[in-house]
Amino acid sequence: MNLSSFKEIALKYKVIFFDAYGVLRTHKGILPGVKEMLGFLAENDIAFYILTNDASRSPELLAKVYQEADIDEINEQKIISSGMLAREYIQNKVQKGRIVYLGTEASAHYIEHEGLNTVSIKDLDLDNCQDISALILLDDEGYDWNVDLNKTLNLLRKQAIPVIVANTDVTYPVTKKDVAISVGAVGNMLEVLARKTFIRFGKPDSQIFSFAYEYCTKEHAVTKNDILMVGDSLATDIIGGNKFGFDTCLVLTGNILPDNYDLMIQSLGIIPDYICESVAT
Amino acid sequence: MNLSSFKEIALKYKVIFFDAYGVLRTHKGILPGVKEMLGFLAENDIAFYILTNDASRSPELLAKVYQEADIDEINEQKIISSGMLAREYIQNKVQKGRIVYLGTEASAHYIEHEGLNTVSIKDLDLDNCQDISALILLDDEGYDWNVDLNKTLNLLRKQAIPVIVANTDVTYPVTKKDVAISVGAVGNMLEVLARKTFIRFGKPDSQIFSFAYEYCTKEHAVTKNDILMVGDSLATDIIGGNKFGFDTCLVLTGNILPDNYDLMIQSLGIIPDYICESVAT
Amino acid sequence: MNLSSFKEIALKYKVIFFDAYGVLRTHKGILPGVKEMLGFLAENDIAFYILTNDASRSPELLAKVYQEADIDEINEQKIISSGMLAREYIQNKVQKGRIVYLGTEASAHYIEHEGLNTVSIKDLDLDNCQDISALILLDDEGYDWNVDLNKTLNLLRKQAIPVIVANTDVTYPVTKKDVAISVGAVGNMLEVLARKTFIRFGKPDSQIFSFAYEYCTKEHAVTKNDILMVGDSLATDIIGGNKFGFDTCLVLTGNILPDNYDLMIQSLGIIPDYICESVAT
Amino acid sequence: MNLSSFKEIALKYKVIFFDAYGVLRTHKGILPGVKEMLGFLAENDIAFYILTNDASRSPELLAKVYQEADIDEINEQKIISSGMLAREYIQNKVQKGRIVYLGTEASAHYIEHEGLNTVSIKDLDLDNCQDISALILLDDEGYDWNVDLNKTLNLLRKQAIPVIVANTDVTYPVTKKDVAISVGAVGNMLEVLARKTFIRFGKPDSQIFSFAYEYCTKEHAVTKNDILMVGDSLATDIIGGNKFGFDTCLVLTGNILPDNYDLMIQSLGIIPDYICESVAT
Repeated sequence: MNLSSFKEIALKYKVIFFDAYGVLRTHKGILPGVKEMLGFLAENDIAFYILTNDASRSPELLAKVYQEADIDEINEQKIISSGMLAREYIQNKVQKGRIVYLGTEASAHYIEHEGLNTVSIKDLDLDNCQDISALILLDDEGYDWNVDLNKTLNLLRKQAIPVIVANTDVTYPVTKKDVAISVGAVGNMLEVLARKTFIRFGKPDSQIFSFAYEYCTKEHAVTKNDILMVGDSLATDIIGGNKFGFDTCLVLTGNILPDNYDLMIQSLGIIPDYICESVAT
Repeated sequence: MNLSSFKEIALKYKVIFFDAYGVLRTHKGILPGVKEMLGFLAENDIAFYILTNDASRSPELLAKVYQEADIDEINEQKIISSGMLAREYIQNKVQKGRIVYLGTEASAHYIEHEGLNTVSIKDLDLDNCQDISALILLDDEGYDWNVDLNKTLNLLRKQAIPVIVANTDVTYPVTKKDVAISVGAVGNMLEVLARKTFIRFGKPDSQIFSFAYEYCTKEHAVTKNDILMVGDSLATDIIGGNKFGFDTCLVLTGNILPDNYDLMIQSLGIIPDYICESVAT
Repeated sequence: MNLSSFKEIALKYKVIFFDAYGVLRTHKGILPGVKEMLGFLAENDIAFYILTNDASRSPELLAKVYQEADIDEINEQKIISSGMLAREYIQNKVQKGRIVYLGTEASAHYIEHEGLNTVSIKDLDLDNCQDISALILLDDEGYDWNVDLNKTLNLLRKQAIPVIVANTDVTYPVTKKDVAISVGAVGNMLEVLARKTFIRFGKPDSQIFSFAYEYCTKEHAVTKNDILMVGDSLATDIIGGNKFGFDTCLVLTGNILPDNYDLMIQSLGIIPDYICESVAT
Repeated sequence: MNLSSFKEIALKYKVIFFDAYGVLRTHKGILPGVKEMLGFLAENDIAFYILTNDASRSPELLAKVYQEADIDEINEQKIISSGMLAREYIQNKVQKGRIVYLGTEASAHYIEHEGLNTVSIKDLDLDNCQDISALILLDDEGYDWNVDLNKTLNLLRKQAIPVIVANTDVTYPVTKKDVAISVGAVGNMLEVLARKTFIRFGKPDSQIFSFAYEYCTKEHAVTKNDILMVGDSLATDIIGGNKFGFDTCLVLTGNILPDNYDLMIQSLGIIPDYICESVAT
């Protein structure tokens, strides 16, 4: 497949969904040209949102990173995170009791709402857990894996409760070469050990696309054909966007490098509608 | 959990989504009381739809089974099948070439539309497959597994194309005791062998719930809280409905028997909002 | 890693275990230089055996292919097949009843012995299966997948019996480009559907190496350090040989091509002691 | 199946292999009657060994637990641990460089031998790891999971090295009701994340049975038919023993309780030759 100019493609759509990491930013900061590109979208009346598998921080805090880099186009209303789906689930389906979370206090933001108590796994007393009504995995930080993953497993052996994994990613990049294990991988391990079926939110699962679609149709009169999903990962952004019925655009600033995108597309059989070197092109 | 009366529960909702098999019918025919129950819904202005993991026949043919049993309340407009999602995918994402299908001619209904050619795997010539643009698994019947599953695998080794599995079930009941292997299980085997990522439509994946929700909001002014999902299977109907944000009701006329529903709920950690002996209660 | 001369390496060992397919033969016949190489081994008093994941034919029939190509060095005593382990299991652990097999009559050779009756899945009557004491998967041919895999699954739902998969391979090559689905893949599908734990024999599982080691130490006074395992597949021959404690040699005439063996070794982390272009070098 | 007297069964064999946990001891200490039973074996010239998936401590330390309970029949020569297979692998296949281990210093006992240096993952400097030649997972203790599992994953992304998991268990009991996550489960998570194939030692894999068989035939003139494997777990001890060709005996003092052994045998299809309430019967 040939490379296209991102701006030329963008002009065909009314709304653009961006993945965050590898598309707008990397471990080194905001990618070059992102501010200009967002200005171009504004000039041409093209709306945009950011779809991110991130439940470690509130949309407000996630937006702050961009604002500190002088990109005021991105505020919390622009951000749709997998944590927001977990919050919706909790609000709809958990009416009472305490919710145990794996994550930092910043991540617990997603599950705090009226009438529900939350408790970090690190503070849970297993001898006093009859009122626990749900378990939610938000972040890989904020608790001691050696101690608290055992505690989590034993909680699931005692109580029949729904388990929500608010981030489907299994790793995330921390430097140019190194990665960290994400809470999605921790969830996969615990699900096998506990012999339960966990509920997962995040790309490529279609519910985050459905959530984003409903979210943006409240502000814009669009159909699926008016929306372009832009991502750096075939196995999350592109296949998920394709399946939900959006057009899709792969960019080569993250997971997939310019010299092997063709091989990856061939070997996975996941085919984007467009490929661009970056969103700045 | 205690058993409830289905009719009492139904009165709390504006729309009800029913699973078909194990809820409205079994291998022996329509379950007793279904016609009366649908009359009760009509009297009380409660709408309903059937959500089924079935891509073997068109909604029209699926509805016929009920009509032949004198249940005229069910017509093709009431039926939402996983095959319809596959059709939507094909219409949105496959613009040219030929589509290969695994299934009967009746199942091929879902993928026939203007400008696209379809070919059964049993008629495909592997030496002449450069124009194949997608593969879709619709039914376990209509082709020779010994010959055509090998052909399918070799097609996927030659061509980088999207693969759609239009039914996520792995088995289906054929008599009181016996089951048959469903095309979902065939898809799982081929996906591992071909080292690709297939696209699956059907419960518990949220896209069929999203599709059904959009479908019914065109006819009724409802929100997720107005909808009840009724099913006989914790691992598809109930967890899928829960995750999408619907209230859920387990019935004991299918997969799960009256004497072990509590054990199943405990061991899987999948918790319905209600449990009823049948939809006739 | 650098390429070595196979004959130079061979001189360091007393016994050599060869994989068959991709090492000594391919779909086109015996590889060039094999006869000469076996002569070289004989001159230098180096014994050899063939270790093959094949339960479709008796060692006698497997040897015939070589003899018809004038390679008289290979007779049935030289061949150790995964079918022989299945036979040993049946002899040790199944004392009565009938054994159902999936395979051709030629494959049933492995399970026929005094006092036991065997029945092909295609001839089994499910209404008369109380005396079935074991199920064994021998070959992908000899039965109708559409009909008989359903029958197999329903047998496993009725009877608690051990299931033996006599070939761990999931595909095998049939032409230069095409493969066929092996009975190992059928076993993987059935195991998930039946929710049982099957017993598998064949590389890379260590039992075939243990069997071969015991077999050859009856004829030769050797230790593990005297034995070289030669194969074309990192994931079966090499890792299995390494794990059992043999030295290992990868040849590039089969699964792994000369231009990407380094990449494969790096990416899998499976490291042979030697690499040779072919056994003829 | 009916329960048998263990002593009556034992008299039919020349060698008995015992699993440790759930058979001879539990979290509360040595099970009642074990000392007497071992005396009975001695009187009747029946040899015994303990086969354990444990690489956290040397055979000497593992034996000490029994000796402190006055059971002098058990010394380090009686103990065959999965750690010993890992040691054999290292000795055979790793000739140079440093070996990284996950575990306590007590577990590192298994990999320390002449000419090789070992380093705990907690002390490894990732910027200085070019000489690392193998990674071995020995115990769940002795390192910080939050920090050191990320370090392990990044090591595997940098270096193509064999990875050995010296304990296949995924959990182990710590109190009557609670379990802890074992290093086997950590290995499963890392293997998926690193996309490598790890080498595992421990029941049910046949290599520990092969090792034990070879070990005991050096001291006793026996064949497989003279050996009985006794365990509390169908999925490790019994299926592993069956597959290797030993007779097997399930005891009900550990994993499987007296009131559901029949259900477990039916549902898993793993069938022991005998069932006893305990080894004291």
